[in-house]
Amino acid sequence: MVADEAPAGTLRPGGRTARVRRAVLRATGDVLAEKGFRHLDLAEVAERAGVGKTTVYRRWGSAAGLVAELLVEMAEDSLPRTDTGSLLGDLRANARLVQRTLTDPRQGPLFKAVIAAASWDERTAEALHRFYDTRLQEWAPCVRQAVDRGEVPTGTDAREVIRAVSAPLYHRLLLSGDPLDEAAADRAAEAAAAAARAGAYVVPAAGSANSATAHLP
Amino acid sequence: MVADEAPAGTLRPGGRTARVRRAVLRATGDVLAEKGFRHLDLAEVAERAGVGKTTVYRRWGSAAGLVAELLVEMAEDSLPRTDTGSLLGDLRANARLVQRTLTDPRQGPLFKAVIAAASWDERTAEALHRFYDTRLQEWAPCVRQAVDRGEVPTGTDAREVIRAVSAPLYHRLLLSGDPLDEAAADRAAEAAAAAARAGAYVVPAAGSANSATAHLP
Repeated sequence: MVADEAPAGTLRPGGRTARVRRAVLRATGDVLAEKGFRHLDLAEVAERAGVGKTTVYRRWGSAAGLVAELLVEMAEDSLPRTDTGSLLGDLRANARLVQRTLTDPRQGPLFKAVIAAASWDERTAEALHRFYDTRLQEWAPCVRQAVDRGEVPTGTDAREVIRAVSAPLYHRLLLSGDPLDEAAADRAAEAAAAAARAGAYVVPAAGSANSATAHLP
Repeated sequence: MVADEAPAGTLRPGGRTARVRRAVLRATGDVLAEKGFRHLDLAEVAERAGVGKTTVYRRWGSAAGLVAELLVEMAEDSLPRTDTGSLLGDLRANARLVQRTLTDPRQGPLFKAVIAAASWDERTAEALHRFYDTRLQEWAPCVRQAVDRGEVPTGTDAREVIRAVSAPLYHRLLLSGDPLDEAAADRAAEAAAAAARAGAYVVPAAGSANSATAHLP
């Protein structure tokens, strides 16, 4: 039980406010994973977190508000990228991280619930886009390093390469129901690396004369 | 208004039963696209379709039942694959079809609603898997033809190649919010073709000695 009211002057970073936030977001993730966004009830979150309902309503206001801040925390807490020294090694590390996350008994249902909610709730969609921006930025340097090493052509778009690694894994989770195993992760990484080497992710520099049409047939 | 009761002996394929089905599934798609699965109400569907409520409850039973049959109809009605004579041409046609579908003002929201519902409703998930099986089977021959023409290595897995074309487009729709335009479709097709040519989608034959490990590093 986190005390709902603290004496004046005791709030500090890492203190009660941070503990309340952590407990509330933990409970939010639990309810999402167990029951989905439709059943995310602020009173239940407050009870599970051991904080007063008023605190949760005042600070987060709605289920969408809770999920938006949960995604901020997930981006803050997510693992730094792996630097293996080769593009294929780096992309394989990224693919296996995504695969482990999506098959984790808590994280898998949590991601499904957030993605579903993003399809009808604009605030959740924006929070999800920001989460992916953060992850794409974290992993983008592995593509820039591959360009510097001469593994892939100059102009290779890091965002496209990193997307190509995770997209087939999300497709299995959300659409086809095909197995989401390590072999699927490795194949996604190998395919993205092969396509990058072949120049498939080279995009025209912004502002170049034919930027809109340079890659049309 | 479709008559809810027909005289005995008048039911025939393409007759009243088929008209009722068409009207009910059309209304189901309309409600899904406008309001999402959470607001898919059988009474509203019956009213929009101009059929009796009893007919809808008796034949489809639930919102999940309606969506499952809508997906069967969508698979039946979806366009046959394009045969352009080259793998890249075929994959580009597939990518542009997916891109046009997902950005269509009715089909885009409809797909989002069905995918969201599949994340918590098992019957909808199974219907969605069958829909993708049908579409993957429809397009698989373009990969087998590419193998015969020597464009890609023997053993290239058609399902993996076709998935690689659409997965980045669904990733834009559901996760990143990045533009879902023709350039994105063409890039997805080019990347899948390049990875296929490089052998990234060759899978070990079922039953081969090292089928589980042959592609691990």
